[in-house]
Amino acid sequence: MNTFGRVFRVSIFGESHGEEIGVVLDGVEPGIELSEKDFAKDIDRRRSGAKGTTPRIEADEPHILSGVYEGYTTGAPLTIVFRNTNTRSGDYAKLKDIPRPGHADFTANVKYGGFQDPRGGGHFSGRLTLPIVAAGVVAKKILAETVSEETHGHVQFRCEARLMEIGGIADPSKWDAALTQAQKEGDSLGGVVECVVDGIPAGLGEPFWDSVESVLAHALFAIPGVRGVEFGDGFAAARMKGSEHNDCFTADGIGGHEGIVTPVTNHAGGMNGGITNGNPLVFRVAFKPTSSIAKTQRTYDFAAQEMTDFQVPGRHDTCFALRTPVIVEAMAAIVLADLIDIA
Amino acid sequence: MNTFGRVFRVSIFGESHGEEIGVVLDGVEPGIELSEKDFAKDIDRRRSGAKGTTPRIEADEPHILSGVYEGYTTGAPLTIVFRNTNTRSGDYAKLKDIPRPGHADFTANVKYGGFQDPRGGGHFSGRLTLPIVAAGVVAKKILAETVSEETHGHVQFRCEARLMEIGGIADPSKWDAALTQAQKEGDSLGGVVECVVDGIPAGLGEPFWDSVESVLAHALFAIPGVRGVEFGDGFAAARMKGSEHNDCFTADGIGGHEGIVTPVTNHAGGMNGGITNGNPLVFRVAFKPTSSIAKTQRTYDFAAQEMTDFQVPGRHDTCFALRTPVIVEAMAAIVLADLIDIA
Amino acid sequence: MNTFGRVFRVSIFGESHGEEIGVVLDGVEPGIELSEKDFAKDIDRRRSGAKGTTPRIEADEPHILSGVYEGYTTGAPLTIVFRNTNTRSGDYAKLKDIPRPGHADFTANVKYGGFQDPRGGGHFSGRLTLPIVAAGVVAKKILAETVSEETHGHVQFRCEARLMEIGGIADPSKWDAALTQAQKEGDSLGGVVECVVDGIPAGLGEPFWDSVESVLAHALFAIPGVRGVEFGDGFAAARMKGSEHNDCFTADGIGGHEGIVTPVTNHAGGMNGGITNGNPLVFRVAFKPTSSIAKTQRTYDFAAQEMTDFQVPGRHDTCFALRTPVIVEAMAAIVLADLIDIA
Amino acid sequence: MNTFGRVFRVSIFGESHGEEIGVVLDGVEPGIELSEKDFAKDIDRRRSGAKGTTPRIEADEPHILSGVYEGYTTGAPLTIVFRNTNTRSGDYAKLKDIPRPGHADFTANVKYGGFQDPRGGGHFSGRLTLPIVAAGVVAKKILAETVSEETHGHVQFRCEARLMEIGGIADPSKWDAALTQAQKEGDSLGGVVECVVDGIPAGLGEPFWDSVESVLAHALFAIPGVRGVEFGDGFAAARMKGSEHNDCFTADGIGGHEGIVTPVTNHAGGMNGGITNGNPLVFRVAFKPTSSIAKTQRTYDFAAQEMTDFQVPGRHDTCFALRTPVIVEAMAAIVLADLIDIA
Repeated sequence: MNTFGRVFRVSIFGESHGEEIGVVLDGVEPGIELSEKDFAKDIDRRRSGAKGTTPRIEADEPHILSGVYEGYTTGAPLTIVFRNTNTRSGDYAKLKDIPRPGHADFTANVKYGGFQDPRGGGHFSGRLTLPIVAAGVVAKKILAETVSEETHGHVQFRCEARLMEIGGIADPSKWDAALTQAQKEGDSLGGVVECVVDGIPAGLGEPFWDSVESVLAHALFAIPGVRGVEFGDGFAAARMKGSEHNDCFTADGIGGHEGIVTPVTNHAGGMNGGITNGNPLVFRVAFKPTSSIAKTQRTYDFAAQEMTDFQVPGRHDTCFALRTPVIVEAMAAIVLADLIDIA
Repeated sequence: MNTFGRVFRVSIFGESHGEEIGVVLDGVEPGIELSEKDFAKDIDRRRSGAKGTTPRIEADEPHILSGVYEGYTTGAPLTIVFRNTNTRSGDYAKLKDIPRPGHADFTANVKYGGFQDPRGGGHFSGRLTLPIVAAGVVAKKILAETVSEETHGHVQFRCEARLMEIGGIADPSKWDAALTQAQKEGDSLGGVVECVVDGIPAGLGEPFWDSVESVLAHALFAIPGVRGVEFGDGFAAARMKGSEHNDCFTADGIGGHEGIVTPVTNHAGGMNGGITNGNPLVFRVAFKPTSSIAKTQRTYDFAAQEMTDFQVPGRHDTCFALRTPVIVEAMAAIVLADLIDIA
Repeated sequence: MNTFGRVFRVSIFGESHGEEIGVVLDGVEPGIELSEKDFAKDIDRRRSGAKGTTPRIEADEPHILSGVYEGYTTGAPLTIVFRNTNTRSGDYAKLKDIPRPGHADFTANVKYGGFQDPRGGGHFSGRLTLPIVAAGVVAKKILAETVSEETHGHVQFRCEARLMEIGGIADPSKWDAALTQAQKEGDSLGGVVECVVDGIPAGLGEPFWDSVESVLAHALFAIPGVRGVEFGDGFAAARMKGSEHNDCFTADGIGGHEGIVTPVTNHAGGMNGGITNGNPLVFRVAFKPTSSIAKTQRTYDFAAQEMTDFQVPGRHDTCFALRTPVIVEAMAAIVLADLIDIA
Repeated sequence: MNTFGRVFRVSIFGESHGEEIGVVLDGVEPGIELSEKDFAKDIDRRRSGAKGTTPRIEADEPHILSGVYEGYTTGAPLTIVFRNTNTRSGDYAKLKDIPRPGHADFTANVKYGGFQDPRGGGHFSGRLTLPIVAAGVVAKKILAETVSEETHGHVQFRCEARLMEIGGIADPSKWDAALTQAQKEGDSLGGVVECVVDGIPAGLGEPFWDSVESVLAHALFAIPGVRGVEFGDGFAAARMKGSEHNDCFTADGIGGHEGIVTPVTNHAGGMNGGITNGNPLVFRVAFKPTSSIAKTQRTYDFAAQEMTDFQVPGRHDTCFALRTPVIVEAMAAIVLADLIDIA
């Protein structure tokens, strides 16, 4: 299913080397000011070009096809498309015979019986996170406006993700060297992103199936290359005692919403029983190292039916996690825009 | 929303201290042999009574209300209920004034405006995992039958979760002492559960939104007290290099499905691009320490509007993670029974 | 799928001759006063016993299993069950060999491969409209409260269905004779029900897929035995000219909502472009004659593989349409309670 | 919600006078041969230009944006767009002040607070049925292939709708005169379309909520201008006796599927208990007369707050029902492609 959400709903389409990729947003309320230039900042944060990212550089210009009239959303489905221009499809000819380790080439072939578009990973490509970023921009606008309205401007919505570590290194001053080294070895690195969302009201989420954690994790694990998601203390909570992990309540709440007393510590990451408690949401996402590496890998040739030495064709990120904080933010905003509509 | 799934759908209802709790299963195929006794083993694994678990012991007898006729499922909605008997509601009178730290008392009150059933956590109670276990039993039956049919009995479906650590201790021989100590201190412990699912076909899951990881994580984070979920190498993958983390292909696949060549390593935990690759699914779930502790906690009294010393009333697990492996299995089976129906 | 609705969601379960039938309502807002006695009036309207209805009389006593605490809805799933008592299952033994003409015996057998519960139509029985009526009672309460709140008591929600004709006869004074005659002939009659819903705000429904007509028709055609649904002028509209059928606007609107100018005629039945316009909703539902008749029918014996004379066993309504107005109302209320939640 | 379907899912977007309109199809199986030229025939049947249809003529050239690779569907979301070229937006300036009777101008304004795109009805325009026709072409292909495969070519899928009457006239030889007369009067006509679907297997549909009738009616009432839907004998069934309306079974079934004995009469229109019985599906759809008429209408000016004489600007069909049979077919195919996927 290519759609996510219950009231604010996001559908994506397109392939890495197809003509266009895009997103249809359903359930966008009318009257939100929106134009193509609103997307520039976040799209830029996802763009490649910096050290550790792929030399495939796309214009990534959003084009609003529907749902906006005279500068405001109409309430009808909002469609945003991006043209693919800088594609080199010749690179991907042999991927059915020798599926790239770590990629979806093999599983796509099993699932779609060879009919999938193999170029650049087709619909499985990380390029599909571009329309996600666009959807995130709209979601952030909805949230900022809703929060501001409901609190008469007293509370600001804030959704910020940043890279905590690359290749296990937490000190950003050492990242450049690590990237250079990995690139030299023809290898790649992973990373961990932390996201903090502040300003959202207490009471979002549903008991059990649609707990805030459930819906957020659902969206976050949809980002290609995610291996783990944790909230608040996360895996460390399993090693704590109840007296250490519990967030006791106090009148001087972090959340600061008028009349709401929130916990002053935030071990739970902003929710209890799957419902937001007014504290900031805090969660971390683990990204694997880029699967495409220059280094030779020993893998199976399904056509020749024998093991073979294999080098991944195409242009790739040394550490695609560098480009993911804005995608993580987008997913958080998409989920919360839906939950705030339902509440 | 109290329902999960697209074709095999699970709805739960009930409150901890209400008359009955139950589950409605939709999309169960007809002709599966099923009776109340099929639930005994898994329900027993969830039951309390052992060291570290609550002294509230329930009969937990499943009663099939609909959807089974002459010993076989009919294809109509399958309803299973459990009667609540051993309830002590007097314990929970003051929870609106002094919400228990770590529990949903506060957030439920915000969300439901004081109308929620506060007794034992009401609909937020861990007791609602009992119908989940029942749903898991049916899901496992569906999967075992489907896998066996499709592979002519060559492959067996297997779904097994076990506790990997308690309170940060990986050696089971030391758990008893740790539980005794925590209990003595009036404190509680968390734990980590690992689940392995074997025998499922390659090709399950959808690109992006309904990746296997997304749907599994959605269900797993619905279990009360989960703080983190990771697949394969999980968070450790973020510290590995691509050449270490990639699963290269080989003719001697672990999966062993006829004609399918699967990766011999399993760093990804059984999926690529969100689609199962024939390897066993492997994932871990972090459970927080039990929130209800005997130890006095300093928290806020919303009625008196001042800080207060607080001791949690009621009977509780020292380490509820002890009871969760069968719940984790149930969630995995519920998700896979749905994905296998769609594929 | 046994569930209907997006935010206010209705799931039904059970079989005609099973132990219990029931309904789970999800998305019910907290704080609505509700007890078992609220259901009495509508359940009574559906009950058999009058001329033209089956002699199978059930107690039909609703039992609230979950979702209500101290007399008010909690916001958690609301479960209502009914015990089946007056069942005579011996009647239905041969229905797999000789499926009853007009019933689901044949199609259920194809779909469920013989595993369906054949007693009294099993899950296909009209008895499943009893939990629908219960759901309708809750939906009406939600609507009445919402409309009254939003209009500060100026507008009352009203949802009333009545039988317009039986066996093609519009004059109620002649119905008794027609029923007597049909019963004497061992035959059955159909009927047409008209429903008017007043007091709902303009703006409900969605363009295209979830037009008010679409969602209402979806629910109405779920009632067993419905053959047609029409809105406003309905099929007659196809024979009118635009100048006759258009509802022009006027300041003296029927709808009477403050500040809203609605059409003074109501050919469209209360909606334009799939969205309510403030006029009363008006629609009609055609019910077929009861399929179970005493008269001998010439049909096929699938066991003997030959044509046979067949008389339907069991006890039945001469005109089940007599019992449907309250079911039609329930469906309208269920749909509108969902649409008003989304708007 | 702009999406319909559970497994085969159809999302539409765009506005009458926007840049492009389109459809995203999700759940399309891989390996179906598809190119732009496959759409020509059905699009042509919907096109205007004939007597009684609007002089706004569009190229209506489909453009496949994603989901097809080297001439075959890939299994990824299939996006088809159409460029709007022949638009005259100046015509629609005053519709917020004087909403066109019978149109969605008024209700859209209530629902979207004035932010809707008013040009040509915006997202409410009948032009959105163009992507529906495109979706129908894909659905028909899926059905034809599935039916042929499952019956080894013995059964052909057939889905044919035709106009039964215009302005109440059943004799086609008299339609031309009626259209001429209506046009002369500046008025418009409605019509009734009948659709027959043959070749589909018995067993499609679900009991209650997703009965075949329910899901078909849901889709059919989404077509702008539909006032009624009836199956088999439809409203006439309400005037028949059970002995006349029941379809008895016989060995010489109409359906003709090997080994399936279907009813020889077809009063029910091809289903029992909401499940297809192997007989052809037969249903009728009533279309209102075109709302836009040249004739002066007396209606309300919301800006001037007084009644006014009003003439609808723009170019319109005298009888848009003329263009609907292919849309009705498309809706039937869309629904059945989804139901056949679920079964």
